[in-house]
Amino acid sequence: MSKFNQYFLMEANDVIEYVQEKVSTFKNSNKLSCKEIGDGNLNYVFRVVDQESGSSIIVKQAGDTARISDEFKLSTNRIRIESNMLQLEGSLAPDLVPIVYYYDDTMNCCVMEDLSDHTILRTALLNYEIFPNLAEDLATFMANTLLLTSDVVMNHQDKKNMVKNYINADLCEITEDLVYSEPFTNYKNRNDLLPENQEWIEQNIYGDKKLRFEAAKLKFDFLTNAQALLHGDLHTGSIFVREHSTKVIDPEFAFYGPMGYDVGNVMANLIFAWAHAEFTLPSSHKKDSYLQWLEGTLTDIIDLFSNKFLTMWKQNVSDIMAKEDDFDRWYLDSVLVDTSGVAGLELIRRIVGLAKVKDITSITDNQLRAQVERVCLLTAKKLIIERTTFKVGTDYVNTLKNEALLGKKVMKND
Amino acid sequence: MSKFNQYFLMEANDVIEYVQEKVSTFKNSNKLSCKEIGDGNLNYVFRVVDQESGSSIIVKQAGDTARISDEFKLSTNRIRIESNMLQLEGSLAPDLVPIVYYYDDTMNCCVMEDLSDHTILRTALLNYEIFPNLAEDLATFMANTLLLTSDVVMNHQDKKNMVKNYINADLCEITEDLVYSEPFTNYKNRNDLLPENQEWIEQNIYGDKKLRFEAAKLKFDFLTNAQALLHGDLHTGSIFVREHSTKVIDPEFAFYGPMGYDVGNVMANLIFAWAHAEFTLPSSHKKDSYLQWLEGTLTDIIDLFSNKFLTMWKQNVSDIMAKEDDFDRWYLDSVLVDTSGVAGLELIRRIVGLAKVKDITSITDNQLRAQVERVCLLTAKKLIIERTTFKVGTDYVNTLKNEALLGKKVMKND
Repeated sequence: MSKFNQYFLMEANDVIEYVQEKVSTFKNSNKLSCKEIGDGNLNYVFRVVDQESGSSIIVKQAGDTARISDEFKLSTNRIRIESNMLQLEGSLAPDLVPIVYYYDDTMNCCVMEDLSDHTILRTALLNYEIFPNLAEDLATFMANTLLLTSDVVMNHQDKKNMVKNYINADLCEITEDLVYSEPFTNYKNRNDLLPENQEWIEQNIYGDKKLRFEAAKLKFDFLTNAQALLHGDLHTGSIFVREHSTKVIDPEFAFYGPMGYDVGNVMANLIFAWAHAEFTLPSSHKKDSYLQWLEGTLTDIIDLFSNKFLTMWKQNVSDIMAKEDDFDRWYLDSVLVDTSGVAGLELIRRIVGLAKVKDITSITDNQLRAQVERVCLLTAKKLIIERTTFKVGTDYVNTLKNEALLGKKVMKND
Repeated sequence: MSKFNQYFLMEANDVIEYVQEKVSTFKNSNKLSCKEIGDGNLNYVFRVVDQESGSSIIVKQAGDTARISDEFKLSTNRIRIESNMLQLEGSLAPDLVPIVYYYDDTMNCCVMEDLSDHTILRTALLNYEIFPNLAEDLATFMANTLLLTSDVVMNHQDKKNMVKNYINADLCEITEDLVYSEPFTNYKNRNDLLPENQEWIEQNIYGDKKLRFEAAKLKFDFLTNAQALLHGDLHTGSIFVREHSTKVIDPEFAFYGPMGYDVGNVMANLIFAWAHAEFTLPSSHKKDSYLQWLEGTLTDIIDLFSNKFLTMWKQNVSDIMAKEDDFDRWYLDSVLVDTSGVAGLELIRRIVGLAKVKDITSITDNQLRAQVERVCLLTAKKLIIERTTFKVGTDYVNTLKNEALLGKKVMKND
């Protein structure tokens, strides 16, 4: 009897046996090596390499508590969601996610394409690397996966069954806490403020009643708006890149929510990359061309997403009332309002809350980091409070550059 | 072996055997009589009476097609939903629903309290009967069942599991078609217009682009907004009354949707009752006091619902962000906007669509009926297009009375 008939948390040696037993192309491989390479918060990721052929594969297994903290008890349901979602995304947005070879609901693991020749986008951006296709690929990924899983296109009964299959209560709760509640209330006392910004954040975030009120509205949209099947965690750490290749990974937070949640997350995390480069790089031609590319990417993600969304709408709309004149534009506008709000929330929670981003934490000069944080937080507040005014990509870039300019003036005067 | 171990559609004689076998209090009853008394669209309703003791009971069984048309294929899932929902409503709003004694998921039937001493509210209203507690009871029923099943109060993980258990795809599709699509597009060619109003409706409903656009927005809210567990079909045919007693029945359309859907349905159906009385009764003291009571009831349903909602919010709110200052009022306002929109949709679909109400169809003079329909349709258009302005009960009554006054002037001039 196979030892893999009952769930246990595998070590590297178990994974080699597992792959030999379960994956046909590795059945006769006697020189397999395996290493745990996970650095996410929730799962164990093993890379298995056939030392003879050089071919390789990833085995991702879900544990039953989060790696960063035993406080988060998690159902292993998330690996089912991730595996199903990767396959669905692969069919809706071809070549933009890793291929799934095998999903095992006993061992709670998923065997998938090895993308070790790719880099995590956040890391690449911290090295100021440029990816000419990034905006195009991400806009395609989002327009396709979001619009094609919505009531605009899907049969409404099928869509409701999808909603049911992708109920993801425990992972959604993490987002509800970390993104939508703790940054404004610190009610779990887990926020982590840079000492140089403690007072500023207490005054300008915790103390801003209007901001908190708008965040509450956005939270209830997240809780109730079953608009499309989201990736649910689409930051630059969930995107693999190589020149001319983009692969979205880790959709374990997938659920039916507001479309703007995915688009807003992408925007916020690229804003972090921009702020990092703008404030840490000395003036140079390289800096200029990197920032120029990144500003173009921020702009294009919104504008290409909007264009693709409207084009695909015309080609795929099935709901009879969604065909009303100009309804597509109204619907897209509401997605863009959510996008702006969520981008603001993501910027705030990564600075105020417990889960940080390297774009900020890698700035070792605390005075400088405090200023970069304030630029991002001030941009965030505009994105949330004035979210109906962010309609095109340049609205984001102009606001961000303006806040950066003001921030630099403050620094000069200090 | 029991004949009830496999599903079949029961006749009256089967139901007698069934009750003797399944319901302990009827085990030794040898003088049971049984009659099918159903007049709804989807189910078979049997009343079983013990001729000796006089005690009685209702057995409701789900068929697998709708009674009104074989076109509607239905899952028997709806009787599970109805039985569970009645029990849940009974715990959230005590004494306002019939007691469930037994639910059988093989025979797809539910054994429940007999309310034959009550009358269907629509029938009672067509007899101009007055029920002093009606507004109070319905406001309590809606405030309790809606607020207490929402993310404002419930643990969010538990709420998501409720969303899953109450996915009700086929019955929702009926509503999506009959309420949100066909009245504006006639795309299934099933609309049923009074000849005297054919041209008027083609021009003022089908031909009103602004109205259709707003209906499209409301449709997508219905499709995506998993706000609270709704009754889903709360018209005056789903409410049993007796003096000082109100019982809400038939929650088979229950699902997680926008709260305003239930409140709006109640309002629209009471508006029909008002219009019927206003235009068919000759002037009299009785007419005056009946209309006065009905106008008070229309007013109170909105205002008592609002008051109870805000009071219960304070007592039960658990979400940390929902506790922000004035968020309760903002949230209620958005429910009231939906309420107005849905009330308008229900008024339109009952006149234009295939499922009519007796308040209108019982008016035998076609000229008069045409005028009453127009008054209701003009009120409906205001309720939909200007839905952000209907904040308190008198907003509804004033608009309705104003349209009625204008309608009477038109008749005089004809």
